[in-house]
Amino acid sequence: QWEDAEIMVLLQVMYTDLDFIAAFNIEPAVLQHFLFEVYRRYNNIPFHNFKHCFCVTQMMYGLIWLTDLKSKMDSEDLLIMLTSAVCHDLDHAGYNNAYQINARTELALRYNDISPLENHHCAIAFEILEKTESNIFRNLSMNQYKRIREGIIKCILATDMTRHNEILNKFKSILTAFDFTNKEHREVLMMILIKVSDISNEARPMEVAEPWLDCLLQEFYNQ
Amino acid sequence: QWEDAEIMVLLQVMYTDLDFIAAFNIEPAVLQHFLFEVYRRYNNIPFHNFKHCFCVTQMMYGLIWLTDLKSKMDSEDLLIMLTSAVCHDLDHAGYNNAYQINARTELALRYNDISPLENHHCAIAFEILEKTESNIFRNLSMNQYKRIREGIIKCILATDMTRHNEILNKFKSILTAFDFTNKEHREVLMMILIKVSDISNEARPMEVAEPWLDCLLQEFYNQ
Repeated sequence: QWEDAEIMVLLQVMYTDLDFIAAFNIEPAVLQHFLFEVYRRYNNIPFHNFKHCFCVTQMMYGLIWLTDLKSKMDSEDLLIMLTSAVCHDLDHAGYNNAYQINARTELALRYNDISPLENHHCAIAFEILEKTESNIFRNLSMNQYKRIREGIIKCILATDMTRHNEILNKFKSILTAFDFTNKEHREVLMMILIKVSDISNEARPMEVAEPWLDCLLQEFYNQ
Repeated sequence: QWEDAEIMVLLQVMYTDLDFIAAFNIEPAVLQHFLFEVYRRYNNIPFHNFKHCFCVTQMMYGLIWLTDLKSKMDSEDLLIMLTSAVCHDLDHAGYNNAYQINARTELALRYNDISPLENHHCAIAFEILEKTESNIFRNLSMNQYKRIREGIIKCILATDMTRHNEILNKFKSILTAFDFTNKEHREVLMMILIKVSDISNEARPMEVAEPWLDCLLQEFYNQ
């Protein structure tokens, strides 16, 4: 078990390890500020908390190395994937989309019942990134920023499980002719990788997976 | 030229004429309250103002009678169409989506660059409808409400012109085998009808259309 402060250091190491600091001229103080804001905006709930954020990001980080993605995709795509994992459940309040829609919550009204949670997580991510002191993308060119914003939005919105079959079928349909030079193919792969990371708890050793399952159920029964 | 108060009466007459008052047990005071709230939430801007709302709704109303839709679709669908027209540009501030996205406005951030305006118009519509005193749907069954909410969301989001080709192509593909008993076919038709109404100004007599074009250009150059 890691302390939250240690987790923030581990996340920082991932950004360093993947060469993002150098490639995108990210100042260490800005990265720390960003990670602290992220930490602050995860809620103290049984499952969708800062530790879940870390588990998903760690899995994404592991998958990037394991599949040697660094040799196949550029740094922008890798930055999109890691940052999407970090931000993918920001300000989750423990109530799922079905609950939001049925209870006609503020989020469901705001987002017209369309992925209310995922839209909100993503909006919070860019709320953090809009502040200069926590904007790890502040030294990017306008075009880089645009591309990375688009990518993160696509990835975070892909974590809505009601879109599971849609995204999985799209991936299956391109799989036999997968081409890393094809932008659309890469985008689908990134969506699949964040989905895999998001639900990867079940693939961890039983002694890790089971307590998390209890947390998920506890959060579920609280709503 | 009609006064705003007269326009509200005309809109009320449309709800009466199409038998919505009786079919959905809409109290006249609630309808008036609803229409007044709608009026209040259109802004005083050159083009996307309350008069534009009226023109689009009037066109929708005219199309419903002209094509004898009452004999082909049920009252729920007609209510969806008329109410979508009434609400389709609520709280438009005169800046289009491209501007919102490039200027990274609050709306673009909130909606992750996905139809920020149309999502906002729709959210404002249901903000008005959430208040009991202006909720013209308050006597509907839960299932009716659900269906009508879904329909209005689909229609208002369809007015985003960046989706023009997508929606038009979908319509073309079902046109030869169009079937009023097919829910998906009806949904595409409703999207097309609100799109037609929304951009119908060009089909009005030149002496009506031209001043509106000037307004549109004025709003465009203001941004």
